[in-house]
Amino acid sequence: MNIRQEAAKMKQCAPEMAASSFETRNRALELISEMLEKQRDEIFEANARDLKAAAENGIAASIVKRLKYDETKMQDSIEGLRELMTLPDPVGKLQLKRELDEGLVLERISVPIGVIGVIFEARPDAMVQVASLCIKSGNCAILKGGKETANTNRVLFGIIRSCAVEAGLPEGCLLQAELHNEIDELLECDEDVDLLIPRGSNSFVRYIMEHTKIPVMGHSSGICHIYVDRAADQEMAVPVIVDAKIQYAAACNAVETVLVDRSIAAEFLPKLANALHEAGVKLRGTQEAAALITESTGLAVDIMEEDAFRTEYNDFVISLKLVDDVKEAVRHINRYGSHHTDSILTKDDEAASYFSWMVDSAGVYRNCSTRFADGFRYGFGAEVGISTGKIHARGPVGLEGLVTYKYVLSGSGQIVGDYTSGKKQFHHRDL
Amino acid sequence: MNIRQEAAKMKQCAPEMAASSFETRNRALELISEMLEKQRDEIFEANARDLKAAAENGIAASIVKRLKYDETKMQDSIEGLRELMTLPDPVGKLQLKRELDEGLVLERISVPIGVIGVIFEARPDAMVQVASLCIKSGNCAILKGGKETANTNRVLFGIIRSCAVEAGLPEGCLLQAELHNEIDELLECDEDVDLLIPRGSNSFVRYIMEHTKIPVMGHSSGICHIYVDRAADQEMAVPVIVDAKIQYAAACNAVETVLVDRSIAAEFLPKLANALHEAGVKLRGTQEAAALITESTGLAVDIMEEDAFRTEYNDFVISLKLVDDVKEAVRHINRYGSHHTDSILTKDDEAASYFSWMVDSAGVYRNCSTRFADGFRYGFGAEVGISTGKIHARGPVGLEGLVTYKYVLSGSGQIVGDYTSGKKQFHHRDL
Repeated sequence: MNIRQEAAKMKQCAPEMAASSFETRNRALELISEMLEKQRDEIFEANARDLKAAAENGIAASIVKRLKYDETKMQDSIEGLRELMTLPDPVGKLQLKRELDEGLVLERISVPIGVIGVIFEARPDAMVQVASLCIKSGNCAILKGGKETANTNRVLFGIIRSCAVEAGLPEGCLLQAELHNEIDELLECDEDVDLLIPRGSNSFVRYIMEHTKIPVMGHSSGICHIYVDRAADQEMAVPVIVDAKIQYAAACNAVETVLVDRSIAAEFLPKLANALHEAGVKLRGTQEAAALITESTGLAVDIMEEDAFRTEYNDFVISLKLVDDVKEAVRHINRYGSHHTDSILTKDDEAASYFSWMVDSAGVYRNCSTRFADGFRYGFGAEVGISTGKIHARGPVGLEGLVTYKYVLSGSGQIVGDYTSGKKQFHHRDL
Repeated sequence: MNIRQEAAKMKQCAPEMAASSFETRNRALELISEMLEKQRDEIFEANARDLKAAAENGIAASIVKRLKYDETKMQDSIEGLRELMTLPDPVGKLQLKRELDEGLVLERISVPIGVIGVIFEARPDAMVQVASLCIKSGNCAILKGGKETANTNRVLFGIIRSCAVEAGLPEGCLLQAELHNEIDELLECDEDVDLLIPRGSNSFVRYIMEHTKIPVMGHSSGICHIYVDRAADQEMAVPVIVDAKIQYAAACNAVETVLVDRSIAAEFLPKLANALHEAGVKLRGTQEAAALITESTGLAVDIMEEDAFRTEYNDFVISLKLVDDVKEAVRHINRYGSHHTDSILTKDDEAASYFSWMVDSAGVYRNCSTRFADGFRYGFGAEVGISTGKIHARGPVGLEGLVTYKYVLSGSGQIVGDYTSGKKQFHHRDL
């Protein structure tokens, strides 16, 4: 397949997709949810082939778990589709209506972005989620899933595409890329692809960001912090930190570094260290933090250098450091963090407010786990990814991040010359 | 000056700038408006030196007009500052407030983008406008103006910066770059600069877009169209097209191509050709359009090839072509246009609606001149540029395009484990 040619064709198709009705797009989602059930045998059989290949290739059990598409995951997909159907239309929303002058009316209306390329990890449920978000938001999409689920993806994509067309969406609205070298072709389609959403490892996402002129939405790393303020509820702090670390350590919103106010460190750190150790977490820290922990608990702590605080472990490992106050915590987070999600644990409103204003991250939390950074948990129905960029969408990205807007100006022959000459004046009245 | 070091320092300063109060930022604008008056002699004297140098270097009169900063332009700057002061705070707006579960409240709040680099043409009024938009939106800014107004820029920047600091904004909130080679240094500051806004020639903007990893907002070309539908009011169409072409031909929102429905071409094109010719506009067109015009008016029309429709003239030249209907017009615009601003002239609601939906541009107009695409005319107070991108801001960009948002989540010890285990459920209630 020639991705460049296909992308150019898709670009031609995008306005038609953008103009499709809300009912048609929802009908496509409904058909997909029905078809998943109907074609279950074919889907599960394809998935069995993927799992067999994974076993033969000696892929780790923790990863195989993600490749699996079983009854539970299918029901999750179907539930996700039904939830998405209940969400209002993100397209065609009137965002502004203003009379510039008599008979000259400006409207700003939300519209799909156009052609989106999504490259995602080997998880069959991701194929359904990403495709359905693109359909709901009226975008054309080029989808490339991980090769370890190639068989499952092919069956799922076939279902999704045929349901979209049956519902009345344009033939060319969805395309599946299957070969790894097609990614490099896709990166060169800056004339026709409006947005790329890569998901996966840090190095993969960074590679995408560095090798394309297409705007990229996503995050390369998730170095999240929890700062335990001197006014923290220490009993609450321990389970929040343990949850943020171990509830899903490989997730981008898992905590990597805990900063503790020096004035409570002697009391708090040993309690935290014991709880983390019991949960199976390896401890790393500055000389000062390590000494405090080892003296009172006997636990081993790896000493780390300052620059190592830029490490995203994605594992049962945590970095520990003492700071003077919330100001030093904020400085550390803005310097070593990845602008993803950071939390302060405190009962002090002033410290919390300072933290919220000054930490330059998509999510600034108070008294809860960083793991809440997720489109489903925020109530967006689903997410296409999490953005650590500050342009366009930030944080978990749902339907809203998949639309832009256009300005529609309706007149009756108005010319600019009349306004620059002073013959006419704008009156800018919001309607 | 080492731009990289300065940008890194500015990044550290950005949270403080972001947390500055609305009153402080408005006070800075007020002081600037007063100081411009007080230091008028110094400003005009610096501008006289720039104009003298321009004359010595043989710079064209049309450009010298833009370099000039006189009483009228100063009063425009002051009026602009006062208007900007009356606009509401773009920072700290609550965009969403949702209870995810009891005691777990999500807010989305608008925040400044952070550090913005603006590279603009040699126009002293642009320095005041760009700096004041950045101040009002709580952003730190690195400003680089055209070298032909270096003397005026230096005085204006000095005034702006000292007023900002006097009002209470952080010392490091604004920086002026003066040397051309500093632009290349700036392009490498992707760790510290959040957004670049280049203004100027197509080739310059394209150079910026191709040589940086920093997100770029702006437009390289402005190839705007007017489509004269079969149901157009022809008497209205002629002055609208003439205005769109000649009112300011060098502007990005001037029309470059007029598409005429074939069924009215014999009647309409000669009228249009005569009016354009009288206004001093050179005509170019397809063989078919040229024949029609020359036969009935005797006017000379340069024959053009299809690919030449990608040309932005920035001059008193226009391209003419006949099309079958609104569908062919839309296809031409989406193919050869630059997604800036395109207008349909018609009394037919259906054709107008089709055009609005299907043309993939930031501005889709009906029955008015493309020259209305401008932040001031849209009522944004001022504009920092016009974006033809679809990510983040689109069209004329005012204060709203200079902010992003952050998610603020406040809890009382909530952990994600309780929600994944089923012990607790989200209820997502908008407050």
